[in-house]
Amino acid sequence: MTTPTLIGADWGTTNFRMFLYDETGAVIAKHAANIGLKNLGVLSFEQALMSVLKDEFAGLDHLPFILSGMVGSRQGWIEAPYAACPSTVKDIAAQLVRAPHPRLDVAIVPGLYAKSPDTGLLNVMRGEETQIYGLGDDAEGLVILPGTHSKWAQVEGGEVKTFSTHMTGEMFQVLKANSILGILMDDDKDDEAAFLKGVERALNDKAFLSLIFSVRTEALFNNIKPESLSSYMSGILIGSEIAAEKEKHGNKPVGIVGDGALIELYKAALKFAGFDRVTQHDGDTASSRGLWAINSLR
Amino acid sequence: MTTPTLIGADWGTTNFRMFLYDETGAVIAKHAANIGLKNLGVLSFEQALMSVLKDEFAGLDHLPFILSGMVGSRQGWIEAPYAACPSTVKDIAAQLVRAPHPRLDVAIVPGLYAKSPDTGLLNVMRGEETQIYGLGDDAEGLVILPGTHSKWAQVEGGEVKTFSTHMTGEMFQVLKANSILGILMDDDKDDEAAFLKGVERALNDKAFLSLIFSVRTEALFNNIKPESLSSYMSGILIGSEIAAEKEKHGNKPVGIVGDGALIELYKAALKFAGFDRVTQHDGDTASSRGLWAINSLR
Repeated sequence: MTTPTLIGADWGTTNFRMFLYDETGAVIAKHAANIGLKNLGVLSFEQALMSVLKDEFAGLDHLPFILSGMVGSRQGWIEAPYAACPSTVKDIAAQLVRAPHPRLDVAIVPGLYAKSPDTGLLNVMRGEETQIYGLGDDAEGLVILPGTHSKWAQVEGGEVKTFSTHMTGEMFQVLKANSILGILMDDDKDDEAAFLKGVERALNDKAFLSLIFSVRTEALFNNIKPESLSSYMSGILIGSEIAAEKEKHGNKPVGIVGDGALIELYKAALKFAGFDRVTQHDGDTASSRGLWAINSLR
Repeated sequence: MTTPTLIGADWGTTNFRMFLYDETGAVIAKHAANIGLKNLGVLSFEQALMSVLKDEFAGLDHLPFILSGMVGSRQGWIEAPYAACPSTVKDIAAQLVRAPHPRLDVAIVPGLYAKSPDTGLLNVMRGEETQIYGLGDDAEGLVILPGTHSKWAQVEGGEVKTFSTHMTGEMFQVLKANSILGILMDDDKDDEAAFLKGVERALNDKAFLSLIFSVRTEALFNNIKPESLSSYMSGILIGSEIAAEKEKHGNKPVGIVGDGALIELYKAALKFAGFDRVTQHDGDTASSRGLWAINSLR
C-alpha cells in the first residue's frame, strides 16, 4: 500500500498537468485540466488549484505542492525569478519560491535564463528546466523541447550549460491566423512532401523573411495546393529552427521531449536534416520525474 | 495651356494615388483616396473610380486610364497575369489588360514574377514594377522598394532581371498586434539606439526565429524599455532583410524608393550595414512617370 506524499504540477500558459506521488516517488494518479494561465478567468491561483483536487486528489490539500511553468512568472501566482545558467537541479531546488498562503505548502520552481557570452543575447525558459532535470542521465548532450517557444538546451554532467529559443510554434500560429500567408490555406491536410519541401528550402536558404513569402507565391502559381500550404509553412518554420541549430552544433545526438503530431514533424525534419541519432522522451514523464527530483532536494 | 490627356493611378491594397497628365506627360493634378482594395466595401471598382473623379478630375471619364498595383490581381478589377522576368517596360506594355467596361478605357498593368534558377523560388510584385520603370536610367543596379512586402530588384539596361521579396512590414505588424512580442510594448517612441541595436544583432545573427525572441527577453530583463521595444523589433526585421541581401550582393550602390519615416529607417540601417552609396527616389514621382512611360508604349 502506498501513501500519497506530494502533489506536483506543470502549470503553463495553456496546459496544466498534475501528478500525485507516493513516498517512493512513483506517480499514483494524474490529472490534466484546462486551467492554464490564460484560461483562469476570475479564479485565483488558489481557487483554480483547489478546483482540480478531486477524485484521487480529493482531500489532499494538506500535502506539499511543487509547481513548475508560467505559474512562477511575473503574471503567475508569485514570481520565482529565473535562475542563471549554468544550473544543476540542486541550484534550482535552492531557489524555490513559496507561494504566499497561510495554510497551503506550495513551492514554485524558478525558470532558467542563459546569457550568450558572445552576443549578450538572453534566453528564458519556464517548465522545460523541470523536464530536462527529469530526464536525469538521458539529458546529456543536446535536448530539444519543441513548442510555442522551442528550446534547444546543452546539458553536461547534469548541468544545463546554456540554451536557445526559437519562436517557431507561435510564429506558425500568428502567420496562419493573421497574415496574408494564411488566406490561401484551406481545408488543411498533413502533406509530408510539402512539409519536407519547406524543410529542404529552409536548410538551403537562411533568408527567413524572404523564404516565408514563398508560402504565398507557391499558392499563387498552384505549385502547392491550398490544403498543403499549412504543411509547407510548417516545414519552413521547423526547418529554419533546425538549420540554425545545425550550424551551431553539427549533427550531434539529440534528445527530443514530447509526443504527438508535433514531435513526429520534428523527427521527420531532423532526419531529413541529417540528424541520425534522435531519442524521444515522454513529456509527462519528464515533468513528473523532474518535479519529484527538485522537491527531493528542498 | 495644357490639355488633360491621361489619368493614371497606383491602386493597391491600402493606398490609391491618382495622377492627371497633360499631352507632354507632365502631372497637372494629383489625388490620393482611401479606396484601397481592402476599403472598397460595397463599391465596385468602377464605382470607386468614378467617386474620385472630382475637382481637377471632374468630367474626365472620357480620358484613357492606366492602373497599376493590386487592382490587377486575382482579387482586383480583372486579373492582369504576372509578366515574366527579365522584363523591360516594353514587355510590360505589351501585356496590358483591358478592364471589362462598355465605355471606360481602362488599361491595367501586369505585375512581374521572377523564378530563381537556383532554388526554383518564385517572387511577385504589383505596382513596384511601374515605379522601377518610372525611374528610367536611375533604376540601374539594385533598387529597394520598402513596404509591407519589400522588394529588392536587379535592373540592367532598363530590364528587371530578377528580384526578391521580404515580408518585413507585414511581419512587424502581425508580431506587434498578435504575438507575445507586442504585449510588453507600451507608449512607442522612436529610439534610434534601440533600432540600431536590432540592426546590429540581425547583421551578426541569421537565426531569425531565435533572434526575434530577444524582443521579449530584453524587455523581461529591463535592458530595453517598453517604449523602445517597437524600435528594437523594427531594427531586427529591417536588419534581417538587409543582412540577407548584403550576403547576396555585397555593398553595391542602391536606389531606394519612397519617403517618410520608413525610408529614414532603411537609410539608417543601410548606412549601419555599410551601404555607403544610397540614392533616394520619390515614390509618387516614380509611379506617375512609370504609368506614363508604360502608357506611351501601348
